[in-house]
Parts: sequence; C-alpha cells; structure tokens
Amino acid sequence: MSHAVKIASVEGLAGLTIGRLAHELRMSKSGLFAHFRSKQRLELATIDRASEILADEVLVPGKAAREGIERLWSLCDLWIKHIERHVFRGAYFFTGAFFESAGRQGPVPNRVTKVVSEWFGTLKDSVQAAQKRDEIKLDADAERISYQLDGLLVGAYWAHLQGGREAFREARSAILRLLASVATEELPSGAFGSLSAWRKFLERRDQ
Amino acid sequence: MSHAVKIASVEGLAGLTIGRLAHELRMSKSGLFAHFRSKQRLELATIDRASEILADEVLVPGKAAREGIERLWSLCDLWIKHIERHVFRGAYFFTGAFFESAGRQGPVPNRVTKVVSEWFGTLKDSVQAAQKRDEIKLDADAERISYQLDGLLVGAYWAHLQGGREAFREARSAILRLLASVATEELPSGAFGSLSAWRKFLERRDQ
Repeated sequence: MSHAVKIASVEGLAGLTIGRLAHELRMSKSGLFAHFRSKQRLELATIDRASEILADEVLVPGKAAREGIERLWSLCDLWIKHIERHVFRGAYFFTGAFFESAGRQGPVPNRVTKVVSEWFGTLKDSVQAAQKRDEIKLDADAERISYQLDGLLVGAYWAHLQGGREAFREARSAILRLLASVATEELPSGAFGSLSAWRKFLERRDQ
Repeated sequence: MSHAVKIASVEGLAGLTIGRLAHELRMSKSGLFAHFRSKQRLELATIDRASEILADEVLVPGKAAREGIERLWSLCDLWIKHIERHVFRGAYFFTGAFFESAGRQGPVPNRVTKVVSEWFGTLKDSVQAAQKRDEIKLDADAERISYQLDGLLVGAYWAHLQGGREAFREARSAILRLLASVATEELPSGAFGSLSAWRKFLERRDQ
C-alpha cells in the first residue's frame, strides 16, 4: 500500500487508479483488480495505510510523552516534524484530502473526515488531561484551545507551501505562546518564552 | 462555467468530467467536447472562472477600501465572508485545490498555484502600502505579516470545517491583534481591541 499512498499523497485519490498502481508495481492490472475489486476499495485501503503512517509518526510517539501540557506540545511538534521530514511526499494527506472531503458524503470522504476528527480528538483529550493534572486552567475551553492549535498547524503548512521559510519556527513560537496563556501557575510562564527555554524547562524537570 | 465551478468546488477537479457537466447542463457530450476539446481545457477554464468569482467577492471589493491597514483588514474580512456566505459550494477552491497542487507540475496545478500566489501578493502589497502610509511600522517584515494573516485565514477555515463554531470570530480577533502589534503610533492601539472598537475607529476617522 506504500506505493498507493505515495501516488495519492501527491496527486490525490483521484489520481490513484488500479491501472496506474499496477504500472508502478509492475503487476498485472487484472491481478490487482482481483485483490481490490473496485477503485473505492483501493481508495479506502490507501486512506487506512496513510492513517497508520500518521499514527506511527505523530500519535504513537506523541503518546510516549508525559501526559499533560508536555504531551500536547509533543503532538503539535511531531505534527510539524512529519511535514518537515516529508513523511508524505505531497500535501494531500490529510490537509488536501480533508478540504476536498468536507461537505461530501460517502465512504471515502467519511473515512478521510474520520482520520482528521480522530487527530482533533487526540488534541482535545490531551488538553483535558492537562487540565486534570492542573497544568492548564480549568476554566479554559479545551475545544477552543484544540481548534486554535490545529488552526496554527494547518495555517503554518499553508504558509510553508507558499514559500514561507519561517512558517514552522513561527508556528512553534505561536503554539508556545498559546500554551503559556492557558497554563496554570504550576508551569512557569517564563518557560514558554521560546522553544529553547521550554526545552530547558522540560530537561530540568526531568532530571 | 458556473456549473463546472459548482461541481469542482465540492468534488475537486478530478470529479469534473465533460460527461458529468453535459449531464448537469442537459447538453450533448459531443457538443461540450467540441467546445473544450479536452478535460484539461475544461479544468483550466473552471479554475479561471473560480478565480474570477474570488476576485469579484474578495479582491475587487477589498480594493474599494482606503489603501493602508484598512484595506488589509478589509481583504481579510472579505476572505472570511466569502466562506461564511458559501460563495463556493464546497471547500475545494482554493484551499483543497492548492494543497492538492503543491509540489506538482503541469498546466492545472500551475494555474491553481498562480491564483493562490496572486492572493498572497495582494496581501503583501497591502502591507507594504500600509507601511508607505506610515500605518504599519517600517521595520516590520511585510512578507512575514502576510504569511501570518494568510495562515490565520486558512487555519480558521480548517477549524470551521471541523465544527469550530467560533473559528471565524476568533480569526477576526487574532487578525486585529496581529495588526495592532505592527501598527504605528498613527493608529491608536485601542482601536484594535475588538471588532466593534475597530469599526468605531474607522467610522470616526471617516467622518
């Protein structure tokens, strides 16, 4: 499925056909058709594989971080890293795919929307866990914080694709400023002054 | 071309075929094919029509505003309004289209990228014009401000599509905060405190 993900991540699911994939894999079209049986099944399998890659690169390592504001930061940082490291060759999974799927019904757009919703749910769960640990103020709106974080990530990706060289550095700073604005006294606001200051704070605490 | 824009704005350019358009328009497929001659020409004509709609709804009314920080605000506000008013039925033009086109070569992705770059250029020109009028600090980086504004807009659209009901209100506040942070003493920072305060400021000045 990695080949299918590579094709679709650049050209979209529309550019992915059984014939095209057979050509890339040097397999017979009839053999691949016997396996997938329809373009829609091929598309769904490709979305599932892309979703697994996203989980491996962002969600799983993010959950390795200490629960609380640290995990929230780690998830955002790993999301940016998966773009910086070109985990997907193009910009389709899952930004282009989600904009294309929004407002549509059907197995394919529903599956794309589900992946993006799960990512949003992970962010929101992390905000709420940070509130339970008294690291984010209880009167802060977890959903609103999650939308703001997610918007910062996607907006930075957009700016980066347009040529903004500082887009990811600025996004990381903006995320730290947002986290600082909702953090409790438990976390020193000075720690969020910059990325390096935040890293130093985490290192010191872990010693 | 409006029918073609409607189809593509929901389903992407991949979902737009001459056969599909002929069916929607109750025209003969051969007649439409004689007109467009290829799917690529149909796609290019559809992008051009979508680009004209964007110009009519955002760029032209934006340029009616007084040059300077006021026009910059107006462009951002009109961009949000064109989403709120569902000018395009779906989310493809031009967010999905741009994420899908990024990193690809060819007449169709190049045309999409050109439309998005022109929008970015309009934002940047407006920042620079505001600097010439001494409304935005001369030492502020016009390109960086433009990327930040553009990122806020696209990030808000993303959050809105995910269900964030306050996404556009928050985006407008964030844009005003950003403008306040780069405005000169010429513009009272209090004016940017909220949307209504900013509107009052503009009304007073225009009296």
